[in-house]
Amino acid sequence: MIADPVITLTTGPVDAYPAVLRALSRPVFYDYDPAFLAFYEQVNAKVQRAFHTDTPPVILQGEPVLGLEAAAASAIAKGDVVLNLVSGVYGKGFGYWAARYAKEVVECAVPYNEVLTAERVADALKARPDVAVVALCHHDTPSGTVNPVDEIGAVVRAAGKIFIVDSVSAFGGMNVLPEACQADIFVTGPNKCLGCPPGLSLLHVSDAGWEKIAANPDAPKDSILSISDWRSAHKAGNPFPFTPSVSEINALEAALEVYFAEGEQAVWDRHALTARATRAGILAAGLKLWAAREEIASPTCTAVATPEGVDEPALRALIRSRYGVMFSSGRAETMGRLTRIGHMGPTARPIYAPAAVAALAGGMQAMGVRLDLGAGVAAAMAVIDAAS
Amino acid sequence: MIADPVITLTTGPVDAYPAVLRALSRPVFYDYDPAFLAFYEQVNAKVQRAFHTDTPPVILQGEPVLGLEAAAASAIAKGDVVLNLVSGVYGKGFGYWAARYAKEVVECAVPYNEVLTAERVADALKARPDVAVVALCHHDTPSGTVNPVDEIGAVVRAAGKIFIVDSVSAFGGMNVLPEACQADIFVTGPNKCLGCPPGLSLLHVSDAGWEKIAANPDAPKDSILSISDWRSAHKAGNPFPFTPSVSEINALEAALEVYFAEGEQAVWDRHALTARATRAGILAAGLKLWAAREEIASPTCTAVATPEGVDEPALRALIRSRYGVMFSSGRAETMGRLTRIGHMGPTARPIYAPAAVAALAGGMQAMGVRLDLGAGVAAAMAVIDAAS
Amino acid sequence: MIADPVITLTTGPVDAYPAVLRALSRPVFYDYDPAFLAFYEQVNAKVQRAFHTDTPPVILQGEPVLGLEAAAASAIAKGDVVLNLVSGVYGKGFGYWAARYAKEVVECAVPYNEVLTAERVADALKARPDVAVVALCHHDTPSGTVNPVDEIGAVVRAAGKIFIVDSVSAFGGMNVLPEACQADIFVTGPNKCLGCPPGLSLLHVSDAGWEKIAANPDAPKDSILSISDWRSAHKAGNPFPFTPSVSEINALEAALEVYFAEGEQAVWDRHALTARATRAGILAAGLKLWAAREEIASPTCTAVATPEGVDEPALRALIRSRYGVMFSSGRAETMGRLTRIGHMGPTARPIYAPAAVAALAGGMQAMGVRLDLGAGVAAAMAVIDAAS
Amino acid sequence: MIADPVITLTTGPVDAYPAVLRALSRPVFYDYDPAFLAFYEQVNAKVQRAFHTDTPPVILQGEPVLGLEAAAASAIAKGDVVLNLVSGVYGKGFGYWAARYAKEVVECAVPYNEVLTAERVADALKARPDVAVVALCHHDTPSGTVNPVDEIGAVVRAAGKIFIVDSVSAFGGMNVLPEACQADIFVTGPNKCLGCPPGLSLLHVSDAGWEKIAANPDAPKDSILSISDWRSAHKAGNPFPFTPSVSEINALEAALEVYFAEGEQAVWDRHALTARATRAGILAAGLKLWAAREEIASPTCTAVATPEGVDEPALRALIRSRYGVMFSSGRAETMGRLTRIGHMGPTARPIYAPAAVAALAGGMQAMGVRLDLGAGVAAAMAVIDAAS
Repeated sequence: MIADPVITLTTGPVDAYPAVLRALSRPVFYDYDPAFLAFYEQVNAKVQRAFHTDTPPVILQGEPVLGLEAAAASAIAKGDVVLNLVSGVYGKGFGYWAARYAKEVVECAVPYNEVLTAERVADALKARPDVAVVALCHHDTPSGTVNPVDEIGAVVRAAGKIFIVDSVSAFGGMNVLPEACQADIFVTGPNKCLGCPPGLSLLHVSDAGWEKIAANPDAPKDSILSISDWRSAHKAGNPFPFTPSVSEINALEAALEVYFAEGEQAVWDRHALTARATRAGILAAGLKLWAAREEIASPTCTAVATPEGVDEPALRALIRSRYGVMFSSGRAETMGRLTRIGHMGPTARPIYAPAAVAALAGGMQAMGVRLDLGAGVAAAMAVIDAAS
Repeated sequence: MIADPVITLTTGPVDAYPAVLRALSRPVFYDYDPAFLAFYEQVNAKVQRAFHTDTPPVILQGEPVLGLEAAAASAIAKGDVVLNLVSGVYGKGFGYWAARYAKEVVECAVPYNEVLTAERVADALKARPDVAVVALCHHDTPSGTVNPVDEIGAVVRAAGKIFIVDSVSAFGGMNVLPEACQADIFVTGPNKCLGCPPGLSLLHVSDAGWEKIAANPDAPKDSILSISDWRSAHKAGNPFPFTPSVSEINALEAALEVYFAEGEQAVWDRHALTARATRAGILAAGLKLWAAREEIASPTCTAVATPEGVDEPALRALIRSRYGVMFSSGRAETMGRLTRIGHMGPTARPIYAPAAVAALAGGMQAMGVRLDLGAGVAAAMAVIDAAS
Repeated sequence: MIADPVITLTTGPVDAYPAVLRALSRPVFYDYDPAFLAFYEQVNAKVQRAFHTDTPPVILQGEPVLGLEAAAASAIAKGDVVLNLVSGVYGKGFGYWAARYAKEVVECAVPYNEVLTAERVADALKARPDVAVVALCHHDTPSGTVNPVDEIGAVVRAAGKIFIVDSVSAFGGMNVLPEACQADIFVTGPNKCLGCPPGLSLLHVSDAGWEKIAANPDAPKDSILSISDWRSAHKAGNPFPFTPSVSEINALEAALEVYFAEGEQAVWDRHALTARATRAGILAAGLKLWAAREEIASPTCTAVATPEGVDEPALRALIRSRYGVMFSSGRAETMGRLTRIGHMGPTARPIYAPAAVAALAGGMQAMGVRLDLGAGVAAAMAVIDAAS
Repeated sequence: MIADPVITLTTGPVDAYPAVLRALSRPVFYDYDPAFLAFYEQVNAKVQRAFHTDTPPVILQGEPVLGLEAAAASAIAKGDVVLNLVSGVYGKGFGYWAARYAKEVVECAVPYNEVLTAERVADALKARPDVAVVALCHHDTPSGTVNPVDEIGAVVRAAGKIFIVDSVSAFGGMNVLPEACQADIFVTGPNKCLGCPPGLSLLHVSDAGWEKIAANPDAPKDSILSISDWRSAHKAGNPFPFTPSVSEINALEAALEVYFAEGEQAVWDRHALTARATRAGILAAGLKLWAAREEIASPTCTAVATPEGVDEPALRALIRSRYGVMFSSGRAETMGRLTRIGHMGPTARPIYAPAAVAALAGGMQAMGVRLDLGAGVAAAMAVIDAAS
């Protein structure tokens, strides 16, 4: 029997808010029950409120990987040239989907511990005026770095391109909004900073985005991959393309209520403070961040570089079994080279910063790395104290 | 404010078992947490046990419409001729997906209040020996009728064809098993007779089925529509293609425990008894079944023909608002022509038969139909009493 | 393994509202956590709002039997003569507690299928002007009959006596309020018509009630039986005498929210309608009410007289095992002579009336009683239809 | 709006295990439902198994203060001399109840940072051979110190006295068992180390204990304070004296399953390790334990002496608001003089030791105390590492 984790500080799935867990246990209503129809409409309105948009959102019935694949399939037509902005594994990965649908995928990449700049994107667009669609992974979770999405969005919009933004692990944990970043298709999910289980995708599609999809003859229809099937499902009078995931919708509603009750700025602030305290602790303990510079480190995930000679999976296994603390690994190119501490939703709490630093440094020490655990924890606490 | 339903007797989403609702509120573990990995493997083993197979199942992360679309996309190659067996709206619907991938779809249809026979299928296969894939909707829910899947499966197997079976709303509520019906791809879900919320597809794929998928160059890969991506995900050591729906998996486990604890035969028996009592009550009240003959009526759903002149949506709305009882409508061609009473999972309880008869007959009376409500309820009770 | 009940139609414990079950699963806060202190104060304010009083209520940490014993122990002094009004088993039972503390207990009793009148009480008080305390069980659940508490209260108040009212199984299910009935100690609980589990007592104590308690040198202090220990516990700044039952308080809050959201008049109306439909069904089926007259039958509990020769416990066991429906027995003198159908909180739903009639009549028939089950159910439905 | 706590490290109410929270949301069954009767019997058998006794336990329907008051009321007769062993506030407090029922209460006290010894008890009994009943608070929570209950029990038994043991906050978190300590009435509760909400008392009564109660003419009967009323309630065939707290019973069952699944020794070990790591951290940070010697410090609660000049309530308020960590205060004589960190049930996890040390030291620093927070956390981690 494997003991349950004590503190889950991963980058998704993350622990859910208690109110979300309770909402998951609501009775399951028939999707065409009038109470559910009204509820579904209200939930959409709440997503829209969180998005700060005038356009109803689209909820897809699968975790955000569905939203991303659907975005590629829907918005990228056979003749399109796609500019894929790559600062990490997830950004890179979107290119594979893009290539499935596009005429050509042009990649604009930076090292995976760096981020893109508006200038680089402007240059890339100048070099390839035939680009129709630009794609960006806003927060490339496997690197724990955040691209300047608003600045990049301004460049993309100015160039008149369609902009697909993957903000799955950033939205709800920092100040990022679909229209502020001028996204035409903005994909996120409730299972990161909103503190829900995985199971839904939340999309904002701009007018230009809807036009692009409508103009694509190969955009999925009558398919789980269709975005347009769900365009009008937010209205209580309209039919569902297929059965929505009732319990996940219940959870989403509760998560949005938590978000609004606390206030989005307060939520973002505690994500930022938790990350800041964690980074201070990591550095003071003698470890290094994966990000090239602290300014580009994410407020929702701290990626810590694995010291030479440390077996990263063994490290996490030790921390999990000895302390009951679960961290995330890297992915693909970053796998084995970093450990990620999530600050998402219910775990974006400053007090978890010293706990995370203690657990990570403790695990490192047990594997022979010489560190100053006490200095690390003290530094993390000092950041919290300074903010109070 | 719309009042919550009191008794949900629909054909899916159905009410979940209390133990399932509680399981939904379990903490959300990281998918690579060792406790979750071990749990996921156990859940797959439990699905396999419920399937009575030697092959591990495939769990897809979306409600069964995903499983069905994925089956079509994976098993039907460009050059394939598909024989689509149609006895209702859902069977008909599968043909649209099939047509998307096949060279040709040959339809073998019966009226929507009838079912297919092994003879008709044998004839159809004789007429078109070039058929590669045969598809059947076992229980066509919008008609409440059940095709003889085992007999048809024997014919399909004898002819050496690939057999795709949609048993979404039958499995778990009656004696249907993937290998007994010789399915190559058997699609069901936990959200009907297992008493879970919608959000997962459960598939059995036979060796021949896996070969067919492997031989299809266009079978989805790196896609939410991919079956093969998940083939080995049931093993704790193997990676997930993407994040599974943790809470839905939690629910599924609880539902299977309920199923095993009660015993599958006992579960099937109470589905059958509830349906039998409901049918007796409906007929005694003076109403008619939609099914041409009672022998083909489903044990998991009773479709009642709408009397001349009755506005079916208005009828259900009245029953919902006056009695708090929620029934299902028909779909597409059966929409407006019948009302469906679900007997699935937690609602497959004999005592709901008299309640359903009282509510349906009461609603009909309120809309001017002359019925003998009392006789109907008495007949339903008599069936229960006779079985005790 | 004993199967779980399908429909619980008892007179307490009753099924809890789904929102209450979810509230029970809230994290358990430390009682002196500032969040809990604030919450506890709010819950008290909500009880007060439900009571329509200006005085804060008292919540005792045990099911209402605690509230009743505490009321007797606190308000009845050694020299007191108590007039105990008895129309049933619970009223009679209060006399045993009263006798433990009083100088003398004078009983004013009617047959257990009858109720008291204001006139009788006035006469009793005239005969014994030395009475200090009058006690009444408002709704004597084991009889399913309701005393005219407001009229009796007016008589008691006019005579200047202390009035102890047990309204445990009536409050929240009908129009009864502590001040409208002029109670000095009003005892109820959340576990009947409010749809909570058993575990708390809710009391209103009038100014005169508090004076009576203060004047009683033997009133419990530093005891679980003390009412006065908890007098000021409703204020966040004040200490708790001992640890409150945190989860039960969580449940109570949710139940009160359900109560207010639906509206107390609407809640009372559905209790009344469910009871009326049940009574109509019982009578039309050929059974008899226990109550001497329908006017005195409770809106929260229908007591059905057991026909000659029927073994009542065997009857309920058969109904429970065959239909999954659980009813309540009588108690003490009414045990074996009646069966009780609860209409309390979530089960006070009209559609449960035909289900209850079908189950009770079905069980009776199985035990050889000749009834017209169909006519019973039809009559119950007709009452619901007439009210719509 | 007061934010919810992030980590509750109190000495009760404590956080409940997730499985317990889920169990609280089980449907509420009628207490005489056959399923509940069987369940209640099983729960009693599980308590008995946890107690390692041959005698069925007694479950009282109120948090352990009820069990303690009931023990005093039941076992202490008018003519009895009681020897009350006092090493803290709770032990002292039992004397007030004892005095209510006894002829005389003889107190044997030590300073509140010390514990009793078997020798002192032997001497006290020698000095007063007329003592009939000896009472001990095993773990005096407001001091965080543990008396040698087994040794004392041996002395009491040898002297032939009735032994009342309050082990409320120790049982389930360390190796203490009713018969090993020779208790005649052993009182504990599920709301401390078993990880349940407050709402029940769990008692073991020895044969001699039952005889003593039977011989006491004033022992409560037909009262919430009666132990004997519940003596045979554990048998499914026997009636309940009054309605048990169904949801609390549901919670208790889940808590016992958690306890057995992990194994009692493993549970005790993690309580001990968490406490040891916490003490090491506290000392290394420069703080002092309240206990005179570490050997008498409790494995379930660490009481930290408040440094000169620190306003203890303000300290805890700061820690709660800044870090989201909730600690317990002292009580009565220890109020304001110490802060208590609970290690009970789900919070008895080693990783909470560094978190607690960081939070407590951080709060102290913010109030001007000079400490070495880093050294404290490092020392706590070192204890965990050494144990792995």
